[in-house]
Amino acid sequence: MTEHTTAPPERRKQARVASDRWRTALTSIAPNSILIRGYPVDELMGRLSFADAVYLLLMGELPSPAIGRMLNAVLVSSLDHGVTPPSTLAARNVATSGAPLKDCVAAGILAFGPHHGGDVESCMRFLDSGLTMVRGGTTVQQAAEMLVDDCLREGQTPPGFGHRFHTRDPRAARLFQMALELELEGEHVRMIRATERALDARHEALGRNVPVNVDGAIAAICADLGFAYDLGNAIFLISRLPGLIAHAHEERVRQAPMRQIDPKDHDYDGSASRRLPEGRK
Amino acid sequence: MTEHTTAPPERRKQARVASDRWRTALTSIAPNSILIRGYPVDELMGRLSFADAVYLLLMGELPSPAIGRMLNAVLVSSLDHGVTPPSTLAARNVATSGAPLKDCVAAGILAFGPHHGGDVESCMRFLDSGLTMVRGGTTVQQAAEMLVDDCLREGQTPPGFGHRFHTRDPRAARLFQMALELELEGEHVRMIRATERALDARHEALGRNVPVNVDGAIAAICADLGFAYDLGNAIFLISRLPGLIAHAHEERVRQAPMRQIDPKDHDYDGSASRRLPEGRK
Amino acid sequence: MTEHTTAPPERRKQARVASDRWRTALTSIAPNSILIRGYPVDELMGRLSFADAVYLLLMGELPSPAIGRMLNAVLVSSLDHGVTPPSTLAARNVATSGAPLKDCVAAGILAFGPHHGGDVESCMRFLDSGLTMVRGGTTVQQAAEMLVDDCLREGQTPPGFGHRFHTRDPRAARLFQMALELELEGEHVRMIRATERALDARHEALGRNVPVNVDGAIAAICADLGFAYDLGNAIFLISRLPGLIAHAHEERVRQAPMRQIDPKDHDYDGSASRRLPEGRK
Amino acid sequence: MTEHTTAPPERRKQARVASDRWRTALTSIAPNSILIRGYPVDELMGRLSFADAVYLLLMGELPSPAIGRMLNAVLVSSLDHGVTPPSTLAARNVATSGAPLKDCVAAGILAFGPHHGGDVESCMRFLDSGLTMVRGGTTVQQAAEMLVDDCLREGQTPPGFGHRFHTRDPRAARLFQMALELELEGEHVRMIRATERALDARHEALGRNVPVNVDGAIAAICADLGFAYDLGNAIFLISRLPGLIAHAHEERVRQAPMRQIDPKDHDYDGSASRRLPEGRK
Repeated sequence: MTEHTTAPPERRKQARVASDRWRTALTSIAPNSILIRGYPVDELMGRLSFADAVYLLLMGELPSPAIGRMLNAVLVSSLDHGVTPPSTLAARNVATSGAPLKDCVAAGILAFGPHHGGDVESCMRFLDSGLTMVRGGTTVQQAAEMLVDDCLREGQTPPGFGHRFHTRDPRAARLFQMALELELEGEHVRMIRATERALDARHEALGRNVPVNVDGAIAAICADLGFAYDLGNAIFLISRLPGLIAHAHEERVRQAPMRQIDPKDHDYDGSASRRLPEGRK
Repeated sequence: MTEHTTAPPERRKQARVASDRWRTALTSIAPNSILIRGYPVDELMGRLSFADAVYLLLMGELPSPAIGRMLNAVLVSSLDHGVTPPSTLAARNVATSGAPLKDCVAAGILAFGPHHGGDVESCMRFLDSGLTMVRGGTTVQQAAEMLVDDCLREGQTPPGFGHRFHTRDPRAARLFQMALELELEGEHVRMIRATERALDARHEALGRNVPVNVDGAIAAICADLGFAYDLGNAIFLISRLPGLIAHAHEERVRQAPMRQIDPKDHDYDGSASRRLPEGRK
Repeated sequence: MTEHTTAPPERRKQARVASDRWRTALTSIAPNSILIRGYPVDELMGRLSFADAVYLLLMGELPSPAIGRMLNAVLVSSLDHGVTPPSTLAARNVATSGAPLKDCVAAGILAFGPHHGGDVESCMRFLDSGLTMVRGGTTVQQAAEMLVDDCLREGQTPPGFGHRFHTRDPRAARLFQMALELELEGEHVRMIRATERALDARHEALGRNVPVNVDGAIAAICADLGFAYDLGNAIFLISRLPGLIAHAHEERVRQAPMRQIDPKDHDYDGSASRRLPEGRK
Repeated sequence: MTEHTTAPPERRKQARVASDRWRTALTSIAPNSILIRGYPVDELMGRLSFADAVYLLLMGELPSPAIGRMLNAVLVSSLDHGVTPPSTLAARNVATSGAPLKDCVAAGILAFGPHHGGDVESCMRFLDSGLTMVRGGTTVQQAAEMLVDDCLREGQTPPGFGHRFHTRDPRAARLFQMALELELEGEHVRMIRATERALDARHEALGRNVPVNVDGAIAAICADLGFAYDLGNAIFLISRLPGLIAHAHEERVRQAPMRQIDPKDHDYDGSASRRLPEGRK
């Protein structure tokens, strides 16, 4: 007969003795003490930038100063992209219903699907498949050309390339420049550069310019820093979170509730174009 | 008669002429140019820390160096709190189902409800209600005592006070110390300090210690920096995001799928307790 | 000294003996047996409609046939409301990013905020505050008038009244007609009817018609059926889920990815207006 | 020069003339009229069960009475599976933080990942790959055996087979029995039955029983009814929603907030085992 009664406490307790305990290596908590990867969190505060601390938590060790600077720049790069991305519109549509800010943000994050943010992970895999060829004996440029030809044959743009708005993504250029200056360029950056050259050479066949975009630059740099594929995407997600917050907040304070949000019908009325003051450069 | 046919294009186009356009002040996009609050994002990269850039996006202006350091510390403070918070468990339960990392993170964010993270906003409102009394003529200490008595009469702990684990929250202490050193203490910090003293004085009646916690410290400091209530919560959310990511990632790489996650049955097997090297202090 | 080492297994096992077990009254599982509220689920299949089973799970007992019919109608009432509600737009914006269907649905659900769906709960509370007055000695009509005057004084429409599009909500009318025919009208329906009359009498002062809407009708009927406030909202949520699914699916199969979704720029190209065949009436 | 000023209204209006309008075939809205797939929603209310209406909305036409009965049974089948599934635990962990019911539900839905619910879609694809072989000339049984051998060679269980708890899933058995009685069995049901036989024949090699589970039965039946892959998953999601709601609600009303939820430490204290009354069979 099927048994729906609850086992007596003795039997249950015994059952637990054999139960598998599980393990975590991130943070240990004790009364009045929080150790992140072994370091007291209150000792990290004021001494590490947030980007440094993100690296420590995700990778297990303190970043070098160069890596810390690089990661700060990566996180700044995708801070916001205006009102038209689907993630921003998902967040604003939840905001107009009067939902709490966190709900708007969660909805925005759900829109970081394969075509929007997911490109970081796809590009990391793409670059690694090229590097596998290199380990098999081809040159970086040959590998890039074979990958590009494979994509074009299937009518695809390689992940990390092309942009709806930009013909030259200023964020990608700046990230590569910093990686060079900080001596953090590695094989993934070299592979994406080679892919860029291969695409340039097919420019006429393509009928359009397909520049490396910010997702591609983040992918190459995160891969060179040793991030796992899904953590590459996670870095994009951290970067984008403040933008989701800013748009949800602006929707709540500047707009009437339950409006129909048309992404094309907006005007910018913020600060005029300006430059950083000398002291901040 | 009800009209379900679609209006002809001419009529619709005219209808749009009168339509209200909407406004945004955050980011303007043009081909090959992204201006965040007026600044080219590629000029911000490498020059602002991520925390600085978050402040710029949310508040509209560059932070002073002191505010930038303070906000970095605030963001580091809540980076992670181990495996037991409901937000972490929500993220891990989604991860065990094989869902993408972003889904785990979104579920975790949804758990930042009134009892978990929402305290930052509640505490900001609590402090402002005290400051309203002060503007009406009471002293800060009198206001704090009246607020505390109101809470205790209803069997409530003031928002931003008390902790499940810690009798003295090391993160709160460090945040207040930094606010003092950076000369960023304002009326909200003074009000929360007075509240702490009022609670200490009622220590025997309460039968337990009710220290200010990290949410309270973030609330007081964000309020002194001028953040809106929901942005105070948002700062907590940004701070906590890497922890959600780290736990979801660890669940995916270290555990079998579809397991039953017991928050009490875990062991820490990460780095031993350690201190920052001299050069990082 | 702070203790970060893990307690030995013996100590932990003992600690668990005292641990509080928790209780659930919904479903019990044993090998090859699933009992929902005591009934084998496989016995319910084919014998209860889904709406009946929802009632059983949420309320604990089988519904009468009349309640089953009523609940089926309530669930059908809010099935879909076209492309313009924020919940639908949130779901479609997530869909355009290439995210899985479940992510689109989750984002849509997050948009059932206070102004969109949340009205069911607000209206249930509103009606109960009127019924409290009635228990205190006023007539239903007097209570309704006092409530309406309170709302209008604060420039508010009572929850469950008014609609962006409809001056007479056909779903509300049908729900009330069915409640009458099925002899399920109770004090909450009487209170909302009285509120409707009170608003009609203030029609000129209001300068517009403020009819009871489908949220109001669901609220009154769910309250008469004995649903808790948050379960009233939940009924709306179940009702609306297929609409979110249908829109996310249509977005995925009929539209290009990463498009900018303008809620005003759409045409309906589905089935022409039609009536149920005789046999289905 | 980069152009960040807003285009003048004339230019924008013209730009819209050429803009592509988009199309939807689900629901058309006009003042006081809501047509779902052409039918007035108020005419559907009271005449269609919710399951019938779900079929109409997703598939575009009214279901036959047999399909309506089948779909009601499918929706009842996965109503709830107790406290241990990750989706339920995600919902309860969000509930314990004090978040609104809809947030709990959204988090639960996010846990319907590849290993939990996603199996419906995987199984539909699996069955169709078998039917492709059949169209190429093999028998159904040969196709099933080749598919099973492919899975076992990779150490996989075929999607829709096996269960953590049940060695014979009572829900699957009931669904197949109903499909037979309602004369709705089609080629997908035949293919899954053949797969079951193929697995039975390899029972000794497998060392365990791998029965068809409820996901497999839903997959085969939904495929025979003509549902698209992602809509098969969606049917599971609709079925499971009331369970998520019931658990989130129970957590809110029966448990203290911010508790650590251990899925193993619970007791069932609901209704004793019972049978449907004669009149309901």
